[in-house]
This record gives sequence, structure tokens and C-alpha cells, in this order.
Amino acid sequence: MTEVTASSRASEPLAVEVLARVRTGLEASGLDAVVVMAPENIGWVAGAAPPSQRTVRSRHAFGVVPLDGSTTFITVALEGPYVRGTSWFDDVLEYEEFVQDPVSVLADRLTERGLATGRIGIEERYLPVADGQTLNGALPGAEIVSADALLSQLRTIKTPTEIAMIRDIGQAAERIAVACCAAAHAGMTEQDLAQLITAGYAEAGGDQLTMLVVGSGPRSARINAPPTTRVLECGDIVRLDIIGTKDCYYSDVARTAVVGKPNAEHRHVYDELRRAHETALASLRPGVSAAVVYDKYRAAMDAAGLPAYHFLGHGLGVTLHELPFLNAITSTTLEEDMVLCIEPLTMIPGRFGMQLEDELLITANGYEPFTQAADLLRIPA
Amino acid sequence: MTEVTASSRASEPLAVEVLARVRTGLEASGLDAVVVMAPENIGWVAGAAPPSQRTVRSRHAFGVVPLDGSTTFITVALEGPYVRGTSWFDDVLEYEEFVQDPVSVLADRLTERGLATGRIGIEERYLPVADGQTLNGALPGAEIVSADALLSQLRTIKTPTEIAMIRDIGQAAERIAVACCAAAHAGMTEQDLAQLITAGYAEAGGDQLTMLVVGSGPRSARINAPPTTRVLECGDIVRLDIIGTKDCYYSDVARTAVVGKPNAEHRHVYDELRRAHETALASLRPGVSAAVVYDKYRAAMDAAGLPAYHFLGHGLGVTLHELPFLNAITSTTLEEDMVLCIEPLTMIPGRFGMQLEDELLITANGYEPFTQAADLLRIPA
Repeated sequence: MTEVTASSRASEPLAVEVLARVRTGLEASGLDAVVVMAPENIGWVAGAAPPSQRTVRSRHAFGVVPLDGSTTFITVALEGPYVRGTSWFDDVLEYEEFVQDPVSVLADRLTERGLATGRIGIEERYLPVADGQTLNGALPGAEIVSADALLSQLRTIKTPTEIAMIRDIGQAAERIAVACCAAAHAGMTEQDLAQLITAGYAEAGGDQLTMLVVGSGPRSARINAPPTTRVLECGDIVRLDIIGTKDCYYSDVARTAVVGKPNAEHRHVYDELRRAHETALASLRPGVSAAVVYDKYRAAMDAAGLPAYHFLGHGLGVTLHELPFLNAITSTTLEEDMVLCIEPLTMIPGRFGMQLEDELLITANGYEPFTQAADLLRIPA
Repeated sequence: MTEVTASSRASEPLAVEVLARVRTGLEASGLDAVVVMAPENIGWVAGAAPPSQRTVRSRHAFGVVPLDGSTTFITVALEGPYVRGTSWFDDVLEYEEFVQDPVSVLADRLTERGLATGRIGIEERYLPVADGQTLNGALPGAEIVSADALLSQLRTIKTPTEIAMIRDIGQAAERIAVACCAAAHAGMTEQDLAQLITAGYAEAGGDQLTMLVVGSGPRSARINAPPTTRVLECGDIVRLDIIGTKDCYYSDVARTAVVGKPNAEHRHVYDELRRAHETALASLRPGVSAAVVYDKYRAAMDAAGLPAYHFLGHGLGVTLHELPFLNAITSTTLEEDMVLCIEPLTMIPGRFGMQLEDELLITANGYEPFTQAADLLRIPA
């Protein structure tokens, strides 16, 4: 995490790209302004997510982007210095914890900016009911509408700088998985292996691993398996999923390893999974339906007689799971400059689970891989 | 993190204590049921917070506690095995991601249980506006009211098992701060020191450090300072705040260290801060107003000519900051079995910041310290 002054960030490519995209969306939707507040949307639009917002949820942060005029970041005062040093927004307005209601401060700022009778987009999928009531009460003349779908849609297509940032931390996650399996050994605990991964992620400039999976033996078949004190034993399958962020953007890369040598069943299941992965990847290009890609994976797993999962992948950006979703029922059409995770997995309950997860960019003619799973990783016995 | 079967947990002291407390609250408030959904309240009431809920926010989890009858945990299907293995709730109801709306599943379950015309408490400070609309539409005959204040109030007084759990991870955090400063040295980065702390926290059974502060030199004066690549230099002040959870309960212990030897100013500021700390601590007992305790700190800092902070402390439990808040404007009266953090700090912008934070329990006659700050910690030069 590096800290720079606000003035130096306003002209950064990422700031220019994202704000231009948001304003294009406002114009197309007939909105006078949008107010973002979910940590991921604040990070995306304003370039700064106050560190304590996720932990102390009452410390609301708001990013106000009007169609015309300057942007305002509203933050609890104690995060003011961080926001001023990190965000590319024009104005930073602080409220006093315990003393001021952040929603009232927001309503006052919208009123000052002539937006009290405007059409304002908000995040109805984040704003709590109690705060929604306060906002409606404070702005009786405004037309307050949901901007959830607009924001999700705008975030689906990545800008050049976003693509570079996601590629960077994704490739770091892949290198870390390979290096940490080579450095691990039987007799270590899952938590020991997690420590190696955590150290590598920090060295790569990552902010935090938000949901690291280290599942060994039968625990590899648990979908969200945080590392425990279970000791890695010879013959164990170990499933790693390196989920974290760098400068607000996610990595999500999964690999499967074996401690010592794979047995015939391991070999067979992994080879089938990899075949399903390659079949799905080969179908990626603009214009293809996400459901069609899912069906390729599903058909391959069915042919192999292995359990499939209810989704194959998802968009990746300032959230872990975002549009488009690749499952049987979502018919989103793939477009150029989407960044996807493709993550075929198969879980044999009580025995072992295997997963491959790669990140990639949809390009004009197909896709550009950010990461590329190869053979089962080996952890020395 | 350990995993046990649901059946073995229903009779655990923590399960019995917490559910009895919630039902007492329902009775006193005239509620037929409460539906909890914020991760901290799910963890508190049901003993299990699905790992992916914080990262994939759309994967709502609901805990339904009726005044009479069995408890229901509603979770996304992929977290079903985790919830069944971890929660002490009677029933676990799964919904299919992408296919079912979790709020509709909740409304159906409430209807099945004869609660469609009941008085139901919900978390209006968490439930998003969009989901609130769905819930109201699905249960037109129910009286849906805010349970936010009730839940906050119930959580203020800790049960015996909660007290033991918070004491355990808090004392671990204190030991880790002392040991990691002794093991660190000038030339390390903040991130290197953070790695030592992270490893110690995992060894102590912690789940995750949710907001670790390692601020050195001028960065020690930044209130939320995540570790960076800044190198520790001789003469630096280093501020540590070890914020994380073990089995849903928080630790929050801060210490100030110096690399090498303190200079006269360091000595002076630290001694004044410690004096303010001891003055505030000496005033703690049931019946005292939180604002009076804050004033002791404030007066001591004013007398020393050092900047004070807008709060001195807070309750600690399944959230980092909860009732009671110790600041100038909150007149909550302290009660037996509250667990508090007392954290005097002083920030000299651009130069250095110092903080002491201890955890303690309010007892019948005063308080029991969980942790006890002593002299400035030393990091070898």
C-alpha cells in the first residue's frame, strides 16, 4: 500500500477512466448524480476505501459523483487524512463520529449542490433500511432511485488500467501458489502453509487475503476451507484459493496440489478436471453466452462421471464475484474487456476436492490468459 | 478454527447462555421472533458466521430465533456443510445461489412457522433497502420492527463464556505484541513486523487479523495505518493495534514501541499518556457514566498540553466497537459484566502518535484487567 497526495491522483489514468465511465452511465440513465457507499464501489469510483469502514460498519462513507461539477467524498473525520492522501476526489467532507449522522451530512451536501430536487441514484443493495428512511426524510423533493444495476453493469467492462492491475496481482497469486507448494512439506499444518502464502502476498504488494482457502485431505472438499491446524500428510490433496486484494482489486486463483505422489484416482480426476477447464476456455470469445460456457464444463464433468458445481466462474474486479456469472441459468453475453475467473471444481465429499481457477481477459477474438494452470502441484513428502 | 458437529454444540454453555439472553430480550420487547443477519449477530446468536458472507455480500445469512420453538439458520447452499458443522441452531435451511432469493426463503420459513402475522424484529441497520422492500411485500400481515437497539443492548452485558473467550484472545494479542517487538529489529519493514504478528495470531488460534495497525515513524500518527514497506529506523515510534477475531470474538490491544532508545520527548509523552490511562482506569466501576471516564482522560491530556482523541474506549465483543462508547457525549452508565477497551491515544501529526489500549471486565467493585500496558516496548536497533 502506497500513499500519495490527492492532487497527484486526479490526473491518473485510473481516475480519469473510471470517472468518465461513471459519468457516461449517469448520462445514459438520466441521473443527476450517483451516491456510492459499498466499500467496493467507493474504492472503484473514488480510489480510496477507508480502512475501518468494513470493520466498523456504522462509519459510512459516501462518494457523490454529479453529472456536472466536482466530486465529494464524505468520510468519518478520523479517516479524513487517509482519504485526502489516497482518493482522487475533488472535495473531502468529514463528519464527527457520535455527533453527526453521516446520512444527514450527505443530504445537506446534495442540497448545497442543487441536487435536492434531482434524480439521485443510490445503492439500494447496500444502504440499510434505517438510513434509507433518513435519506428520504431529508430529501423529500428528490427522486431517489436504485443505481445498483447501473454500477454493476458499468464495472463489468474493465478499463486498460484496471486490466493491468488485476493481471498484476493475479499473476502474483499464481507465482505464490507454485512457490509455496514447493517450499512446503508434509508435517506442516495448513496454517503454516497459509503463513507462507500470506508473506508472499504482502511482498507482492497485496493489502490483505480476504478469504484464503487452504484445505487438505478431506477438508479439500469443503468449498470455503480456512486454514486450520490440520497437519499435511503424504497422499493428501491440498486445495488453495488465493483470494485477496491489491489497491482495491481482487486476485482469485485456485490450484490443487498433492503431498508426495498422486495415486491413480487423483491422476484421473485431475486430468478430467483439466480437460473440462480447457474445453470451457476454448469456447471463450465475445458474443458467446455465459450459460453456453458453463454447459461445456458441465458436459465434460458429466461425461467423466464426476460431480460438477453450480457455477463455473464469474467476473472479477473490485469485488470477488461480479457480473457476468457463468452458470446454467445466466445468459449474459461475453464482451471484450470483461475479466473473468474460470474455476472448474469437483468435490467428492469426505474424500477430496479439486479445483483449478484461472483469470483471463476477453479479447476481440478470444481471450488472453492472465494465469494458466498446468499439472497438479507437488508438496514434498 | 476447529469444527465440531451441530449436535455437540446445542448444549454448550455459550449456546445456552446466548439463546437464553436473546429470548429474554424477545419477551421483554413483545417480539414473536427476531431475524438476525449482520455477520456479527449471526456469529453471536447462531455460533457460525459463513466464511463467504463478508466477501460475497449477496450471500445473505439469516438466523431466526422465535420466542418459542426451534431456531432456523438460512444459508446459501454452498455454506451448508460449514453451518451444519459449526452452528448450534436446530435447523439449517439452504437456498440455491442465483436461483432463489434468500429473503423469499426467509419469508416462507416465517410463514410456515406461523409468524406471518407476528411481530418480527429485524436489523434495519443492516438489511438493505431492496431486501426490506421484498420482505415487506412477502409478509404484508406481519409487524416488522427494528431490533437493532435490542440486539446492541443485549450484547453489552457479556456471559461467562463470552468473558473467557474475549480474555483468552486479548491476552494472546498482548503477548504477541511484546514478543514480536522483542523479535523485530531496525531495518525490517512494517510488513515484516506484521508477518511476525500474523503468525503469532494464527498460532494462538485466531481466525484473522481484520485491521492490523503497524505504523512507524510519522505513520504512527495515522489512526488506521496498515503495514507498508516503510523500513523501521532507529528512533522511530511504532504503534501496533492488534485487531482480529477468534471464534467470532474480537481482540483489540494497542501498544507503542520505540526502535532503540526513547528520546526525552518520547519519554515525556508516553509517561503523560500512561498517567491519563491510569487515571481513567481508576475511575471504572458499575454506576459510573462513560462520559465521566472520558473526562478523566481528557483532563489529563489537557493538563499535559497534548492532543486528546474524540473517544477513549468502547465495548468489545463480536464487533470491534460496540456499546458502551466512552466519549464526551455518551452518558451510558457502566454495568457489571461489560467488557471494555480503554485506549488513550495522542497524535502529533507528521511526527509521531502513541496509544495504549487495554481490555478489561467491569466487576461488582471495579474492574478486572485482561491486559495491562507497562513501559514503552523496545524494538532492538
